[in-house]
Amino acid sequence: MLTYDLSQRDDTPLYEYLYELIAADIRQGRLGANKKLPSKRALAKHLGVSLITVEGAFSQLVAEGYVRAVERKGYYVCDLTPAAAPVAAIAPAPVQAPERVAVDKPLTCAFDLRGGSLSEAFPYDAWARSLREALSQESEATLVGPQEPLGTLRLRRVLANYLGEFRGMSVSPDQIVIGAGAQYLYNMIIQLLGAGVQVAIENPGYPRLEHIYRVNRVPVAHIPMDDQGIRVDLLGASGANLVHLTPSHQFPTGLVTSAPRRYELLSWASQDGKRFIIEDDYDCEFRLAGKPIAPLQRLDAQGQVIYTNTFTKSLGSAFRIGYMVLPPALADRYERELGFYSCTVSAVDQLALARFIESGAYERHVNRMRTQYRALRDQLMEALRTSQLAPRLSFAAQDSGIHFLLGLRSFASGEELQRRALEQGVAISCLQSFYQGKHAEEGDVRWLVVGYSSLDPAQVGPCVRALEAAWLEG
Amino acid sequence: MLTYDLSQRDDTPLYEYLYELIAADIRQGRLGANKKLPSKRALAKHLGVSLITVEGAFSQLVAEGYVRAVERKGYYVCDLTPAAAPVAAIAPAPVQAPERVAVDKPLTCAFDLRGGSLSEAFPYDAWARSLREALSQESEATLVGPQEPLGTLRLRRVLANYLGEFRGMSVSPDQIVIGAGAQYLYNMIIQLLGAGVQVAIENPGYPRLEHIYRVNRVPVAHIPMDDQGIRVDLLGASGANLVHLTPSHQFPTGLVTSAPRRYELLSWASQDGKRFIIEDDYDCEFRLAGKPIAPLQRLDAQGQVIYTNTFTKSLGSAFRIGYMVLPPALADRYERELGFYSCTVSAVDQLALARFIESGAYERHVNRMRTQYRALRDQLMEALRTSQLAPRLSFAAQDSGIHFLLGLRSFASGEELQRRALEQGVAISCLQSFYQGKHAEEGDVRWLVVGYSSLDPAQVGPCVRALEAAWLEG
Repeated sequence: MLTYDLSQRDDTPLYEYLYELIAADIRQGRLGANKKLPSKRALAKHLGVSLITVEGAFSQLVAEGYVRAVERKGYYVCDLTPAAAPVAAIAPAPVQAPERVAVDKPLTCAFDLRGGSLSEAFPYDAWARSLREALSQESEATLVGPQEPLGTLRLRRVLANYLGEFRGMSVSPDQIVIGAGAQYLYNMIIQLLGAGVQVAIENPGYPRLEHIYRVNRVPVAHIPMDDQGIRVDLLGASGANLVHLTPSHQFPTGLVTSAPRRYELLSWASQDGKRFIIEDDYDCEFRLAGKPIAPLQRLDAQGQVIYTNTFTKSLGSAFRIGYMVLPPALADRYERELGFYSCTVSAVDQLALARFIESGAYERHVNRMRTQYRALRDQLMEALRTSQLAPRLSFAAQDSGIHFLLGLRSFASGEELQRRALEQGVAISCLQSFYQGKHAEEGDVRWLVVGYSSLDPAQVGPCVRALEAAWLEG
Repeated sequence: MLTYDLSQRDDTPLYEYLYELIAADIRQGRLGANKKLPSKRALAKHLGVSLITVEGAFSQLVAEGYVRAVERKGYYVCDLTPAAAPVAAIAPAPVQAPERVAVDKPLTCAFDLRGGSLSEAFPYDAWARSLREALSQESEATLVGPQEPLGTLRLRRVLANYLGEFRGMSVSPDQIVIGAGAQYLYNMIIQLLGAGVQVAIENPGYPRLEHIYRVNRVPVAHIPMDDQGIRVDLLGASGANLVHLTPSHQFPTGLVTSAPRRYELLSWASQDGKRFIIEDDYDCEFRLAGKPIAPLQRLDAQGQVIYTNTFTKSLGSAFRIGYMVLPPALADRYERELGFYSCTVSAVDQLALARFIESGAYERHVNRMRTQYRALRDQLMEALRTSQLAPRLSFAAQDSGIHFLLGLRSFASGEELQRRALEQGVAISCLQSFYQGKHAEEGDVRWLVVGYSSLDPAQVGPCVRALEAAWLEG
């Protein structure tokens, strides 16, 4: 039976502490592949903790791919050794002239299920207060004097601290670069890595990513996903030396990259010092069940993971502040080679954000949003489950982030369902539309990506009625 | 005798109106090359205006290269036809790995003559008021809702209007793109023009420009200047299809590109629809004598001039807002191909700036700064002229922008003078240091670039004493 000393746990919740101990044993091989774990009830009794604690730890282990649950049998340790890579080579797509980009024009629709953030929940008063405080309490020299190219040290310290507390990352402020949004920071990464960068992105994935690399004349390979994450065998065959990932919550599939796949990715990078991984942690704050997934950055011993995040999902898309955490060697290179770039965020905004986080207003806001989103998700899923569409529906990836996948058995294609929804006033995207290249829809289930964050609770009922009208016929 | 109807002039000052009429006659060939203009006194009498009015018009015509003054003889019309281009080819420098960049670390010096803006003159209260007003008077939806990728329409309208009033430019808000500083906008221009861009920059010039193009893997050619501006013959031979200029006030020489040279540049561009000119109008607000030089953009009939400007020189380097004016066809292309980029400036800042300009606070600030700079320049030049260095000094380019050139007869090199000044606590750059490649200092006059804007009036005396200590010996 697994025996752990749970008395050393500081402030960590008990279930999380237990999860950490078991995960460490699996990583270090003390719990080998395919070993069966004791039953939850037996382990709870053995350790003298509640059943809920063990359940919390186990579900986190399952979410991160350390352990798999086998129905009616129990929990088994997964195999963390990277799989051997067979598979045909996929060359990166040749660099092409940028295509016409469909900028998301505001559609005339009553209900928008394409994501975007809940602007009504923007903590307007608290933010305005932080701005006013920065204006009145900081010295003029601080606000309008010469600025540090990486960003204001005070904000970088606050972010380092925040990442330590909430993401378990051990980061120096010297590794952090602040910039006007993630898009800007990706441009800086491309310039930092220099000539010869070839990037791989997830397929399906976030379409604007490809645009950014294309207009920077970087060859792009689209790498398929399986149920563990991006396929590292195909990544290796693609010739790419940079991979851009959303491992904590893949967009749009919602998939959490499994622990074995994370090690495979790190193993891929470690084979060549010029390989890098961009970990885009875009909605880590909004895991709605269990604890947030530990970032890849924490497992990176070789300095090959570049962590990026913004405040777009938590504070709104008008809020143009993002940051990246560079491995120490790249941070040095940034200062040396790109240090001539001035920081693109005004000092007033940076200091207001530092105050906003320090005061606890940011955390309170995120907690409030998480609660609202959870309620909204539950309300919407319940309305769908009790709708006339119910017998044909299935759900996936509803536990994290602010979108989930809705499966609908249908003879129509995903794009047809999307079009019919729009005719009824619902803007929604089919999963199919996020694929690059040919991707046949299999079986009779069509998947829609439901980004519910800009929906008002009062809209849920009418929105589901509109979807019924759109989709009831086959 | 030249005869003009001066009664139609609206609000334009009389001297400027007269200047415009004569310049138009020269451009359209009604006043041919080498024609002698009437004497100032005779023309004033003939037109029934004051001598001061004619003097103002003539000195503007001379400043812009329409007319040249021949001592004791009078004023003659310049030849505006582009010179034929002979000259050996200069290949753009091959793309090299970015070099180590010397980021301007704050030197430990008592007096900083390297430019930078006068942060004490930042209109802090007026700006904070505009920010507070934007926060309290704009709707939440405006501030935190979805934003236009080109920038807030209101600010683009205000800028179009401002450019019309102060630079005589006829510009639609649709042509304006707002971004977090000039460096960011140059990145966007590179991505907009796409693969195959080869840029030419002025030599001597602004060193960070080269860094930006280099890290974007754009080949860079350094084109020498003569007394009219950049040498278009060498530009043509370089193979570049983009030229990045500071025609209104070249940095660091202070040279104003002459009218004939402006037409040569436009003629160069018009020979190939894929050639473009970036007109960097970085300190147009600070012409200290005469009226500001008309921008190249106004003369551009083919849509090949991209005008860029920022608020860095007028509001401080911490103020990260810049804008560019694209020719209509490029503006369309920007929306189509780069419209997926979110605007990098927060809506609050954009609306605060729009209010700041609309309220007249910006214009008042610039006028106040211009007066301060003029007084500071006069005080510094007077202190130099009455110093022990006086017999060895000469001055150039003191009428526009916030730096001038100081010539010192010396046996030492410019770099040696720079080093000796720093030993005495004065940070100052020699002109030589802005040259790329080999450039021998000729004769016995060494030129220093005096950026006086961050000097306090009380520092002028001690600063000149320090320069005496540094340079008195040869």
